[in-house]
Amino acid sequence: MARSKLRYRVWCQPLTRSQPRSRLPIVRDSAMTAKRLWIYDTTLRDGAQCEGLSLSLEDKLRIAQKLDSLGVPFIEGGWPGANPKDVQFFWQLKETPLTQAEVVAFCSTRRPGRTAADDPMLQPILAAGTRWITLFGKSWDLHVTEGLNATLDENLAMVSDTIEYLTRQGRQIIYDAEHWFDGYKHNPEYAIQTLKAARDAGAKWLTLCDTNGGTLPHEIGQIVSEVVSEIGDTVPLGIHTHNDSDTAVANAIAAVLAGATMVQGTIDGYGERCGNANLCSLIANLQLKLDYRCLEDGQLTNLTETSRFVSEVVNLAPNDRAPFVGRSAFAHKGGIHVSAVQRNPLTYEHVRPEAVGNQRRIVISDQSGMSNILAKARTFGIELDKQNPAAREILERLKNLEHEGYQFEAAEASFDLLMREALGQRVSFFGVKGFQVHCSQTGTGDSNALATVKVTVNGRDFLEAAEGNGPVSALDGALRKALVNQFPEIADFQLVDYKVRILDGQAGTSAKTRVLIEFTSGHQRWTTVGVSTNIIDASYQAVVEGLEYGLLLQNNVPSVVTP
Amino acid sequence: MARSKLRYRVWCQPLTRSQPRSRLPIVRDSAMTAKRLWIYDTTLRDGAQCEGLSLSLEDKLRIAQKLDSLGVPFIEGGWPGANPKDVQFFWQLKETPLTQAEVVAFCSTRRPGRTAADDPMLQPILAAGTRWITLFGKSWDLHVTEGLNATLDENLAMVSDTIEYLTRQGRQIIYDAEHWFDGYKHNPEYAIQTLKAARDAGAKWLTLCDTNGGTLPHEIGQIVSEVVSEIGDTVPLGIHTHNDSDTAVANAIAAVLAGATMVQGTIDGYGERCGNANLCSLIANLQLKLDYRCLEDGQLTNLTETSRFVSEVVNLAPNDRAPFVGRSAFAHKGGIHVSAVQRNPLTYEHVRPEAVGNQRRIVISDQSGMSNILAKARTFGIELDKQNPAAREILERLKNLEHEGYQFEAAEASFDLLMREALGQRVSFFGVKGFQVHCSQTGTGDSNALATVKVTVNGRDFLEAAEGNGPVSALDGALRKALVNQFPEIADFQLVDYKVRILDGQAGTSAKTRVLIEFTSGHQRWTTVGVSTNIIDASYQAVVEGLEYGLLLQNNVPSVVTP
Repeated sequence: MARSKLRYRVWCQPLTRSQPRSRLPIVRDSAMTAKRLWIYDTTLRDGAQCEGLSLSLEDKLRIAQKLDSLGVPFIEGGWPGANPKDVQFFWQLKETPLTQAEVVAFCSTRRPGRTAADDPMLQPILAAGTRWITLFGKSWDLHVTEGLNATLDENLAMVSDTIEYLTRQGRQIIYDAEHWFDGYKHNPEYAIQTLKAARDAGAKWLTLCDTNGGTLPHEIGQIVSEVVSEIGDTVPLGIHTHNDSDTAVANAIAAVLAGATMVQGTIDGYGERCGNANLCSLIANLQLKLDYRCLEDGQLTNLTETSRFVSEVVNLAPNDRAPFVGRSAFAHKGGIHVSAVQRNPLTYEHVRPEAVGNQRRIVISDQSGMSNILAKARTFGIELDKQNPAAREILERLKNLEHEGYQFEAAEASFDLLMREALGQRVSFFGVKGFQVHCSQTGTGDSNALATVKVTVNGRDFLEAAEGNGPVSALDGALRKALVNQFPEIADFQLVDYKVRILDGQAGTSAKTRVLIEFTSGHQRWTTVGVSTNIIDASYQAVVEGLEYGLLLQNNVPSVVTP
Repeated sequence: MARSKLRYRVWCQPLTRSQPRSRLPIVRDSAMTAKRLWIYDTTLRDGAQCEGLSLSLEDKLRIAQKLDSLGVPFIEGGWPGANPKDVQFFWQLKETPLTQAEVVAFCSTRRPGRTAADDPMLQPILAAGTRWITLFGKSWDLHVTEGLNATLDENLAMVSDTIEYLTRQGRQIIYDAEHWFDGYKHNPEYAIQTLKAARDAGAKWLTLCDTNGGTLPHEIGQIVSEVVSEIGDTVPLGIHTHNDSDTAVANAIAAVLAGATMVQGTIDGYGERCGNANLCSLIANLQLKLDYRCLEDGQLTNLTETSRFVSEVVNLAPNDRAPFVGRSAFAHKGGIHVSAVQRNPLTYEHVRPEAVGNQRRIVISDQSGMSNILAKARTFGIELDKQNPAAREILERLKNLEHEGYQFEAAEASFDLLMREALGQRVSFFGVKGFQVHCSQTGTGDSNALATVKVTVNGRDFLEAAEGNGPVSALDGALRKALVNQFPEIADFQLVDYKVRILDGQAGTSAKTRVLIEFTSGHQRWTTVGVSTNIIDASYQAVVEGLEYGLLLQNNVPSVVTP
């Protein structure tokens, strides 16, 4: 293991001009040489500009907590004041703060012709109560004169005033220089002046933004070098890139190699147009190949899970081909590859998949299955031994279910039930004996949904019916009605989130549907999954498992222990 | 127009060390300075390694013809002999040759311990009858000794012999040096020896391959420079990169800037694991920003169509966020952007969308103001005046509908219907008079879905019923059954994508559901939206509008004209 790690290092090491054509040094102690970088996540703000992506307050909070536990130091939460959801987001985080990360509020410089103190836009920013504020301002003369209708001097004053004002209120400022590279290419003197204005007013970081995403890596590297030599010894620099040229990750790396120490991006690269720089790729490249320190030790292995969690929450299909974290990123197809990669992974893999919490997949072969399941069980806190027959049973069930479209990454409750069943420890509170659902719509558009369910508890059948404003809420209502007398605690269970994903959307309305439902009992939360070509079947499965799992939790049935 | 083109040039121009901090020269005559690059497409061979992608013979021929008409000079067709499909592909192209492109056969060097003449593997390659053959061989000592079980000298002989043999048969050879960058990092002397062996045996091009995709752009640039200074004056170099580090495009650009003149990649970046370098991004960057000549004049505007054609043929959903050619690549959302981009596109777009055959899209969202609506109407060919009462009516309806959860970003067909309605010009092909859906599940889990619908056409009612594997497919089936006799063209409409999003998931199963359905009639595509707390209602709305819109298109009902 140690040897293989060592050998991976070899070709992860950047070449430098002083080492041409010679064998590279094999060992480099990362603890001694690693330079610190600050990762700044803007999934919740710039990422949310992605077409087709919309985030509820609950989604935003869940993602923030996930990023916090990954160890991302800066999380940009939104523009408080822009909409009520963002105001509430910051308010909620004041009530229950994150443990490690700084949550950052985002806003623009004051408007032309005002003072910062009397621009009402800035008040909700202060009210958000964050220690850090990211302020964006104009760098490109054209945007100042054409976009803002302001003079170049007025724009410099807007930058200075706003930073000074917010600093006086005790805030630390990150200054995002919007359209910086385009501005610099057109009018380098003015672009540098805006940076100096921000620095002199007290900004703690200056971020150079390639807002239109049109700049290429060699340009970024050169321009950042020039900025570093101009002002880099007086204030640290950040980089913010977009993927319009398909080089967002390379652009950010070029900036880091030229001296930037903060890297802005989004999980999975979500963002406006072609997206922002993908933090999953950036963190992995910077930390594994260039020996920068982005996350704390041991956190990098959570990268794949974080990526999939976010795509699940934002309800966009994960990109199988995503570098490092995608399902196909370490998939081996051809026979030669497969046997070679199993003899010596070094020959066909650029990094160890485990380093980023991903796994090698041997396509058209299930030899890697058992380690899969053990790894998966481990992510749920269960240490299963390879020799345990239950492990094989779980593996078989899991494979069949995943083949059918189930996915347990975000549905821990269903996975726990599956393991309990394989271990012969699933407690049966009630049985289901089918349902009927009837929906109708009249010509005038009035619609109606009615469900009947039959359940059995201690050998007794209960048949109940309920109406709802849709088929699934009617089913949920009937089920609760049938069970609540036997299990009064069910009255406290609430369905807090309901997500539907069409698998293989190309099959049209015949496609399979995966439903995720999140429940709460007030102080605990759990999520279940259901899959079927029939969305009502899929939802019913998830509701039934959710009620069952809630009863398990409420009745303190102990968690599964390996025999 | 000429002026705008000129201004785009400014920031497309690479910075060079000699021009720091000064305004860049505005004009550069591309005819005078453009350097020729040779694009080498491997979609049909390396691209076909993509998980989930499979190509029939017909698919391969269609893609080859498309690439030929785009003006790609080299098209790698496959490994003749590896499977009957590839043999037939080359045979077919001998019968009906392409007009411009060279079709290239791909294979490996002869096997150890044979002569080239008596390695039967090479015979089908010759039989394929191409003028050009791409031969791949080992560059990395480890792959020779561990993978081939051969000596390092024997590998050099395999490279030389095979090239000499094929050259004697009148073929031109491109030598693909597999795992070249990893090999060079481990044993640069040997890696260079393999290239010299290929050159000395008569190869016309040497392609450096980053087969594992682990190398970063600054390393590629440096290593290619070293190779250029070692042998670059005696033979031209190519570059072949993979996207495992999310830098495939940047890597290829770095190689070109260092002197490579052939660029290998695939349309849409399809390929094994994380894919190959995306030729759509590469061609656009190289030609529009770096003044290289990749395609003939006027061909670049076919890039977007080529990308979508290929994704259609390989039957994978196109990547909306793809740089240059994606549906969202030039989408503008926020109100400030929209008005600014219309005044001066330069401020928010890195290249002109028309340059690559794409188009600007004004995304309709809840941030839309009047200017968005007018701009959006314009994309449907409708010139609406701000003073037109219909414009205000559309804006009001849109705001109300968006408040209810509708979203028209991706549902242009529904938006067009909405505009026609506001203008009093919606054509009614049929009326809907309600539906009934019945779903049931027995205790054993068997489930069933049945729908009845009533529609009216020309005053006559039609009542039909159908079963489906879910409630929505049952509804869709019943609706088609009721309409197809009146409108036979409906038989050609297919539902190609179905997306469901729960709005405000926190309301649990009572939450609102938004459904998007994409239809095709073979050559046209359109998308509709439906919203309701009842997912069946929402789906029904979208299906009904989809059929209505398809009839509009098929019957060439003219676009709405402002009264």
